[in-house]
Amino acid sequence: MGDRHEATQGEERSGVRQGTSDAQPGDVSQSAGSLRQRIAAMGRHARTAAARLATLSTERKNAGLLAMADSLEAGAERIVEANARDLGAGVRAGLDDAMLDRLRLDAGRIVAIAADVRRIAELPDPVGEVLRDWQRPNGLRLEKVRVPIGVIGIIYESRPNVTVDAATLCLKAGNATILRGGSEAIHSNLALAAALQRGAARAELPEHAIQLIDEVDRTGVRHLAEQEGSLDLIIPRGGRGLIEAVTAAARMPVLKHYDGVCHVYVDRAAELEMAAAISHNAKVQRPGVCNAMETLLVHREVAAHFLPRHGRELLDAGVTLHGDPATCELVPEAVPATEDDWGREYLSLDLAVRVVDSLDEALRHIARHGSRHTDAIVTEDEAAAARFLAEVDSATVLHNASTRFADGGEFGFGAEIGISTDKLHARGPMGLEELTIYKYVVRGSGQVR
Amino acid sequence: MGDRHEATQGEERSGVRQGTSDAQPGDVSQSAGSLRQRIAAMGRHARTAAARLATLSTERKNAGLLAMADSLEAGAERIVEANARDLGAGVRAGLDDAMLDRLRLDAGRIVAIAADVRRIAELPDPVGEVLRDWQRPNGLRLEKVRVPIGVIGIIYESRPNVTVDAATLCLKAGNATILRGGSEAIHSNLALAAALQRGAARAELPEHAIQLIDEVDRTGVRHLAEQEGSLDLIIPRGGRGLIEAVTAAARMPVLKHYDGVCHVYVDRAAELEMAAAISHNAKVQRPGVCNAMETLLVHREVAAHFLPRHGRELLDAGVTLHGDPATCELVPEAVPATEDDWGREYLSLDLAVRVVDSLDEALRHIARHGSRHTDAIVTEDEAAAARFLAEVDSATVLHNASTRFADGGEFGFGAEIGISTDKLHARGPMGLEELTIYKYVVRGSGQVR
Repeated sequence: MGDRHEATQGEERSGVRQGTSDAQPGDVSQSAGSLRQRIAAMGRHARTAAARLATLSTERKNAGLLAMADSLEAGAERIVEANARDLGAGVRAGLDDAMLDRLRLDAGRIVAIAADVRRIAELPDPVGEVLRDWQRPNGLRLEKVRVPIGVIGIIYESRPNVTVDAATLCLKAGNATILRGGSEAIHSNLALAAALQRGAARAELPEHAIQLIDEVDRTGVRHLAEQEGSLDLIIPRGGRGLIEAVTAAARMPVLKHYDGVCHVYVDRAAELEMAAAISHNAKVQRPGVCNAMETLLVHREVAAHFLPRHGRELLDAGVTLHGDPATCELVPEAVPATEDDWGREYLSLDLAVRVVDSLDEALRHIARHGSRHTDAIVTEDEAAAARFLAEVDSATVLHNASTRFADGGEFGFGAEIGISTDKLHARGPMGLEELTIYKYVVRGSGQVR
Repeated sequence: MGDRHEATQGEERSGVRQGTSDAQPGDVSQSAGSLRQRIAAMGRHARTAAARLATLSTERKNAGLLAMADSLEAGAERIVEANARDLGAGVRAGLDDAMLDRLRLDAGRIVAIAADVRRIAELPDPVGEVLRDWQRPNGLRLEKVRVPIGVIGIIYESRPNVTVDAATLCLKAGNATILRGGSEAIHSNLALAAALQRGAARAELPEHAIQLIDEVDRTGVRHLAEQEGSLDLIIPRGGRGLIEAVTAAARMPVLKHYDGVCHVYVDRAAELEMAAAISHNAKVQRPGVCNAMETLLVHREVAAHFLPRHGRELLDAGVTLHGDPATCELVPEAVPATEDDWGREYLSLDLAVRVVDSLDEALRHIARHGSRHTDAIVTEDEAAAARFLAEVDSATVLHNASTRFADGGEFGFGAEIGISTDKLHARGPMGLEELTIYKYVVRGSGQVR
């Protein structure tokens, strides 16, 4: 977050106005006025758009998505140019290579983003599904029908592809979006949103189905969080600081995507080759993601067999082991863990390792230090597995599989907007269905009470 | 809300300590310390209780509920005495008759409350239901399983029976509760909670499954709303002021039960006898509840036939009609409506009446002035009905039936904790299922990515 691009706002805002060639002259969201007033107007416009989107046919929504994909590819040059400005500013601001890489868009990445949008068009439409129907003794017929949530605010950082992912997934589920990206990607986000809006206009989707807050100002998040009359939900995607700021300010529901402090517990009845393969995969394959393992728990009865050899494998893969005293004894290269290592989301080739006396101790450790995201047990003991799967209070619990499978794609959802660590509405990987809610439709023949 | 009972706190707190005869000497939630510290301790205890409740068998939970029902009946005398103190304070504080009636508990009402608890024991247990199971090409078997939400805070006003209803419904769904009732019912609530806790202890339910904040202090709501580490959800039950205060303070999800500004739209193709019966029922049968009609919309083509006669029926039933100019012309006894009448939740024998030119105008009126709770159309025109049911963005939409059917009991849910006006997690009548969430259970044979 920051406001270092503020000098270029006016310029960019007119850029967007050019982009949305269908914008009306009186379009308040793009005209003068305080940021607060403009965001309030965006909320009202989104509400109107959402009402139209809610009853739009699947065919119309899909045609819109395909037009957006085309528009992204057609506008690739403009998007890359805008991205170059963000990259230049990022270099000047001293962003590290990893951050610059997340920020970077080139022709290949834009083609991939457009392909993702076409894939969303191919997914089944969740809206209109009858979740349950039943009849009451008085003859009333009831249906619980899936409907869009309405207007969703997405507040995110860094990676500009979120602009497209979030907006198009929400649109497929019949929702209007108001997007608020990070300052470091403002030019890229504006160019991407303009391309989406051009495609939407060409396919005659409702105006204002997708809107981006085009001004980089810290107060934008707060103003958006105060639009409880027009926003039905806010999804913050980013670091803990962002999520906490949104949660503190928001008067409407917030779906949080907090840390993944994922554990793998190697039980005394584990098949140790399997345990080593799962642990290695969970830590090493992609350490920077939320479903990577951060803590390895090993039952004392197998620790002496398992840890020296598996510890060596991890060390060879470049992992730094932060071990409890028992681990450090078995793996001398491990560095002693401090209390801070338990429950830490490293997102790097670091791993906390602890030897536990029992399944119960493992369960207590996870209850205390876990983040209710994803945890796995490796064991051939069905009773131990059953207890772990029932008692660990995490969105995803696994038996004899890597934590890395806690993912919308791996679950077969086709796409995901994130992994919720909340316990209301949606838990774990959130796909299209999780971007919907339901209504009750009751049909009678004059019934009264 | 208020603190006029503060003088009797110490006395009552020890009363509860007697009640929970199984409480440990070091039980922090009942010992000295600031209210904030005590509420934080209650949160930690509830978290521990919730972990045990989550895996408790249906039989154990039902046995606990039956023991609580017995305990309520056995303690009826003590409860009525405590209630008499609240009623006395209520009279001195000038509460009106309706409020005093809502506050009153007598032997008959306690028997009815206990019977409700026994009915909850008979309902099917939602926990453990497999909502979906599927297999992935890599052999992973996935289950989406219903689990309790965890720890639920209930903040409510006035009617002491909520103490029992809310705690026992949440318990059946495997959730621990922290209750915070209104100051005017503090003695009644303490006596009811003590009875529940005695029953729970006798049935050996986890300690602290049900806790009541025993101190009447305005800051209690705020302290509870700050326990985001231990509370998974807050449900405020009461007036708009209470809900707004909780929403502003809460850092965890809040399920809101706002106003019901319910509309009945009498279409030009309505069967007018049916329309009159539905309108009369929706307004007159129980005007003080959230699913009662507050605004009647009538298509201009039938207004001259419908309104003079039906207006007379409503006037005869004691209804005050607040009409637009067209209504006032057709029903001279109607008082002219002001802008404030549209969208007003009277909760009384008052009704706003407006003549509209078209279905579209009715839809626009509801979109602008409705509260997304419950709205009904009366028509024989299936196309008009289909549009109304699809386009009105309310939790419950009805065709040719009274708005009064928007109710968990009438839907066949067996019990309800309220009617949500939110658009996340639960919409409309909330029963046991809506007090649960799910987790993903993944079973593999060593799969890695």
